[in-house]
Amino acid sequence: MKLKIKNFNWLAGRPVVFLNKEAAKKLNVHVDERVSISADSKKVYAVVDIFEKMLKKGEIGVSDEISRILNLKKNSRVEVSNSLFSSSGELIKRKLSGEKLTEKEFNALVSEISRNNLTESEIAYFVAAEKIKGMSGKEVIYLIKAMVSNGNKLSFLKKIIADKHCIGGIAGNRTTPIIVSICAAAGLTIPKNSSRAITSASGTADVMETLSNVEFAPAEIKKIVDKTNACLVWGGSLGLAPSDDKIIHVERILNLDVEPQLIASILAKKISAGSTHVLIDIPYGASAKVSTRKEAKKLGAKFRKIAGYFNLKLRAVYTNGSQPIGNGIGPLLEMRDVLAVLKNNPDAPRDLREKALYLASELMSLCGIRNSQQKAAEILESGKAYAKFREIVNVQNKKEKNSHDFEKRVKKMELAQFKKILLAEKTGKIVSINNNKINSLCRVLGTPENKSAGCYLHHHLGKIKKGAKLMTLYSESKSKLKDALKFIKETKPVVIK
Amino acid sequence: MKLKIKNFNWLAGRPVVFLNKEAAKKLNVHVDERVSISADSKKVYAVVDIFEKMLKKGEIGVSDEISRILNLKKNSRVEVSNSLFSSSGELIKRKLSGEKLTEKEFNALVSEISRNNLTESEIAYFVAAEKIKGMSGKEVIYLIKAMVSNGNKLSFLKKIIADKHCIGGIAGNRTTPIIVSICAAAGLTIPKNSSRAITSASGTADVMETLSNVEFAPAEIKKIVDKTNACLVWGGSLGLAPSDDKIIHVERILNLDVEPQLIASILAKKISAGSTHVLIDIPYGASAKVSTRKEAKKLGAKFRKIAGYFNLKLRAVYTNGSQPIGNGIGPLLEMRDVLAVLKNNPDAPRDLREKALYLASELMSLCGIRNSQQKAAEILESGKAYAKFREIVNVQNKKEKNSHDFEKRVKKMELAQFKKILLAEKTGKIVSINNNKINSLCRVLGTPENKSAGCYLHHHLGKIKKGAKLMTLYSESKSKLKDALKFIKETKPVVIK
Repeated sequence: MKLKIKNFNWLAGRPVVFLNKEAAKKLNVHVDERVSISADSKKVYAVVDIFEKMLKKGEIGVSDEISRILNLKKNSRVEVSNSLFSSSGELIKRKLSGEKLTEKEFNALVSEISRNNLTESEIAYFVAAEKIKGMSGKEVIYLIKAMVSNGNKLSFLKKIIADKHCIGGIAGNRTTPIIVSICAAAGLTIPKNSSRAITSASGTADVMETLSNVEFAPAEIKKIVDKTNACLVWGGSLGLAPSDDKIIHVERILNLDVEPQLIASILAKKISAGSTHVLIDIPYGASAKVSTRKEAKKLGAKFRKIAGYFNLKLRAVYTNGSQPIGNGIGPLLEMRDVLAVLKNNPDAPRDLREKALYLASELMSLCGIRNSQQKAAEILESGKAYAKFREIVNVQNKKEKNSHDFEKRVKKMELAQFKKILLAEKTGKIVSINNNKINSLCRVLGTPENKSAGCYLHHHLGKIKKGAKLMTLYSESKSKLKDALKFIKETKPVVIK
Repeated sequence: MKLKIKNFNWLAGRPVVFLNKEAAKKLNVHVDERVSISADSKKVYAVVDIFEKMLKKGEIGVSDEISRILNLKKNSRVEVSNSLFSSSGELIKRKLSGEKLTEKEFNALVSEISRNNLTESEIAYFVAAEKIKGMSGKEVIYLIKAMVSNGNKLSFLKKIIADKHCIGGIAGNRTTPIIVSICAAAGLTIPKNSSRAITSASGTADVMETLSNVEFAPAEIKKIVDKTNACLVWGGSLGLAPSDDKIIHVERILNLDVEPQLIASILAKKISAGSTHVLIDIPYGASAKVSTRKEAKKLGAKFRKIAGYFNLKLRAVYTNGSQPIGNGIGPLLEMRDVLAVLKNNPDAPRDLREKALYLASELMSLCGIRNSQQKAAEILESGKAYAKFREIVNVQNKKEKNSHDFEKRVKKMELAQFKKILLAEKTGKIVSINNNKINSLCRVLGTPENKSAGCYLHHHLGKIKKGAKLMTLYSESKSKLKDALKFIKETKPVVIK
């Protein structure tokens, strides 16, 4: 049926239309079902919402995504049809019943996801199929190929592009800015793009943002890398493997970990980013994503196998994930730890320093640098890594006022105004610091939105005396601080025995 | 965070809120995620849409569902929080990994679905888990209990309440109005509520609506049944097992058939409707929902077992579903067939008459009526069934003008203006009439929205001569008629060999 556009200037995150009840009835569509909208020779699919009184008879409300794709003007007329079943739906249905899909079929499916043509529930069915029915090695390869070819790609015209990735799950653990600084100072090209926090207290992009701009277009990133050998930016706006963001979004609804999707997501992003040598950090431990070293190695082998197909040099390392790494958890607290390590402060968290040095030297060795352990340590201790970090931040802040005033920026980094110090209630041994609970605690305190919130761990696993400082909580709101204390009482993120 | 209500008078089908980008960022929610909204001591969960320019800073747009539940006035302020993980999400996640859920857990889950607190994607994960991981008999019982107790119930203060249900999938097959008329004339109480078409050409409610009102409140239904022993109404507005409608909606996205859900859906609706004696028709055949008689019997045994737990007398019958039943497919064409059978017209479709008589006599026998076969035939042949049908329709039309003018109504039933007669292209045997394809063909022609559209089968399986009438297509639009011819060419719903 023909309907007249009513534009609400409304960016819904995906193509959405509003219909009044009458039009919905005629089209036989319900809330959250799909219609196709055609204008001239272009066609787009959109999800339906029913909107009673804002639409006159014969009108349709469209989100900005649709106006852009169809190039619609005010009062344009479009042809709207019920489009309940997508051909991708048929593919997902087959995957649900355990069939293997072909390369062409994965490409069709991922292309629809990338173009926002599938509903969340269709993607949920796909994720459930991946989780329960599994994916063959071939299927993961097809999925990666499809994810890469349906997105943007970066390229840097260098033989070696170094990259690192941690599968996540460990609180704190902000090694990336240190590793990138060391490796770039060692002469490697390492254009690092990172995510913001999804369910954790903070992501590398959130942490970097306490000091630096992190949102850049691909062309700007190239300039930064030309100057500094590196960058530390947010990957979200680059459009690399966009289907991935949508699938992760749907996984997140149930907080699911789907192994083949994890492998495909990480490798598709690395390939799209132009990386050639990739270090994968797989932490294991009771509250990590992977429980044992054995499982971690199994996952690492899968990464290597799939990476081999794409001629990606990949090394997996298995690190202790039994507790948070570093003392500060939360964007600003983590940046303080990073700076302390880079500046070789005597009170810098040792575990963070050691892990960052280890990963940097592994990545350098993967890229063919000899004596990498020694070299990495020398670069850090000599202050070259710190100088490189300042350089990267200054270049990324070039468009800001006083862009070179690194110290001023650091001084401005103030922790949240409300704080509470918790003391050990008895003498004994800290036997557990749960990563997930510490992450949740920080979110209760306001991270990652409030960059200055979070918690500072004065002690890691091991002995502690009654009355010693255990942790300090920071929040911008008194009531959140209260909620955090309640959360600690209920969930016991730290156990002393 | 506190936000001020902006009401759009907008019935979204479930609780939905609009946030501007800034508020969404602060709450750390994305499109299609969930927030909780509290006012006074009431709380409701809602799905998020991001709406850029229609909301001022500090405003939230809420759908009517929310205003009603929270009793909101213009300019009220509400507390909005990120509510990403629901406790039901945790249950669904466990079901996905193959765990069995308890009675209490099913109740919690279904209660959330009934109150519209789960997103479509969460329900999709649940449906996928049911489909792939299966459900134990106990779990189906818990699910039914939960569906019944989280919905409205009808009760009729009679010892025997007869009911029938076909699991669906056969085109035409409009036996219900005939069975209800025969059984009610035989003295049984049979308050029948039916659905509208979901993916088929028409549902019993769509067919009845060509002659009669079908939407009534429970109190009105009681009055109709008091007068006539029966009713033929739409079940959709009665609020029986409302979770079912939402689950079916999500199944429909991929057109999935999930057996435990099918059993639970049907029995929960029957129990909620107060039925005590239920006949289940399970057609089998190549294009039916169940392929073989053996499979049909297996499904029937499951129905009986679960029904036994609820003290529901249930009989399953296994009927030939290898082709459409009756000649007309589409609401009005099917009503014509029904009337022809009830009026004992010599040209009434024989298959429809025989099947309706068989099912009526089986249901009568289940309810303790002896010689039911003979009695059913006598009631139909004597015109008592037709009289009863007229009585039901007249009572259901009581509020209409000229409510007793049954004949006038029948005369008004005019078929769609554009028609096309298709002839057999060769002499031979019709070896296949595919139910799904015939249903889809009718939808292309405009059913169920256009009640007068559809197709008339002049022949069933068996011999046919070149040039004989094969089928007539009816549509209200020339372009749909064209599309239908293309559809026939592509999919070949009828095969002559």
